[in-house]
Amino acid sequence: MSEMEPTPKPALPPAIILCEPQLGENIGMVARAMANFGLSDLRIVNPRDDWPSEKARAAASRADHVIDAARVFDRVEDAVADLQMLFATTARNRDIPKPVVGPDEAAAEAVSYGATDLATGYMFGRERWGLNNDEVALANKIVTLPVDPTYASLNIAQAVLVCAYEWRRTATAGALPFTLEDQEGEPASQEAIQRMFDHLEGALDARGFFRPVEKKPVTVRRLRNIFQKADLTDNEVRILRGVIASFEKYPPKPRGE
Amino acid sequence: MSEMEPTPKPALPPAIILCEPQLGENIGMVARAMANFGLSDLRIVNPRDDWPSEKARAAASRADHVIDAARVFDRVEDAVADLQMLFATTARNRDIPKPVVGPDEAAAEAVSYGATDLATGYMFGRERWGLNNDEVALANKIVTLPVDPTYASLNIAQAVLVCAYEWRRTATAGALPFTLEDQEGEPASQEAIQRMFDHLEGALDARGFFRPVEKKPVTVRRLRNIFQKADLTDNEVRILRGVIASFEKYPPKPRGE
Repeated sequence: MSEMEPTPKPALPPAIILCEPQLGENIGMVARAMANFGLSDLRIVNPRDDWPSEKARAAASRADHVIDAARVFDRVEDAVADLQMLFATTARNRDIPKPVVGPDEAAAEAVSYGATDLATGYMFGRERWGLNNDEVALANKIVTLPVDPTYASLNIAQAVLVCAYEWRRTATAGALPFTLEDQEGEPASQEAIQRMFDHLEGALDARGFFRPVEKKPVTVRRLRNIFQKADLTDNEVRILRGVIASFEKYPPKPRGE
Repeated sequence: MSEMEPTPKPALPPAIILCEPQLGENIGMVARAMANFGLSDLRIVNPRDDWPSEKARAAASRADHVIDAARVFDRVEDAVADLQMLFATTARNRDIPKPVVGPDEAAAEAVSYGATDLATGYMFGRERWGLNNDEVALANKIVTLPVDPTYASLNIAQAVLVCAYEWRRTATAGALPFTLEDQEGEPASQEAIQRMFDHLEGALDARGFFRPVEKKPVTVRRLRNIFQKADLTDNEVRILRGVIASFEKYPPKPRGE
């Protein structure tokens, strides 16, 4: 047996810390956004509404595993105590001298920490006015989104969504849940495509399509390029052969008629 | 006068096409997500609720310019007629042989088209079951998000948000609304930092901190590295000088006591 490549261990996902969120619905939508992109460690500091919250569970839309595992803290210092890289998200300039990065740069760092099992987290503030300066001071870096400055107000779940998306995009190198390759149909072989070209060009020749004849090579090239751009599958080549055959059933119109 | 570099014209943003959306609230949240990232061309095909919709306006949270400019169409073919690159967003594999790209790759293409004023658009389906196969067939490419396959269900506004975010991140090369450089305080000069090091190391020397003396160079280097990592501003150097001076006020403890 040949040796197997070890499967790379997935990076430890970041925690999401919500500071004094006001509405259960928003906590639920945060849980849903986390689940979409493979995050599960939700920490809530002093929620205004009661916890557990039925409104949160309803808004989480079946992301129950995130809601069930959520932990509530009285102090933000306790909520972030174990983290080794902490990002504070803010929508406006806070005059706090700390590096400011976008969600993409933060994700690169979170994934690189997580790859060696170092604990990271993103901290989000209240719906109305975000994090206070003492909370931001706890963080290593500030994350802000590349918004249109004339319309910068994001819902808290939207901000979590973008950070979680960037984390997963980076952690999985953009792996998508499905690709063209999963879809039915093998790519056609060059031979099958060549036979289709011969069929098409023969049928067109019979109809006197290639006139003047010295332009024929250019026209043939253009036709071939059109179909090559389509990355045809075997099945699609069969369909096109059927189309050509169908046109051929009617005899070519004699010249001059 | 020297010649000015012409300001690069911003790329034409993509249109967002919603096919038969069910809830006004969702249309409003889509408008808000678009406004966050500088999109404004919203097209709605056969909304189930009446249009204009007060629920949509309320959920748009002041993105009124997007709501006011939204256009309603009876047929999706009319809604996309002018577009030169159309993306269909789908959450699951549709067995439609079309290239499948992530929001990042789609954004790269949309920005490159938009840079030469070619019209692009992203099409989104119904809340319950997305786009139908005839709608997907209209598109040049399929966009899907790099979600966790075990929890792939995104709200329509969340899907728009991620696509809009990626478009703006690409179009502006990740430009953030503010940066560390906007914040108060010039970076300290090397001279100011060197004087601080001299101050600190002198004070520690007086206290016999550097023992054994042959280890002093290593310890000095470590200390300097700590402060250099902090990218100090002038103001921060002044604060640290004050801290050192405060410690110095108490005379060094004589050796052997």
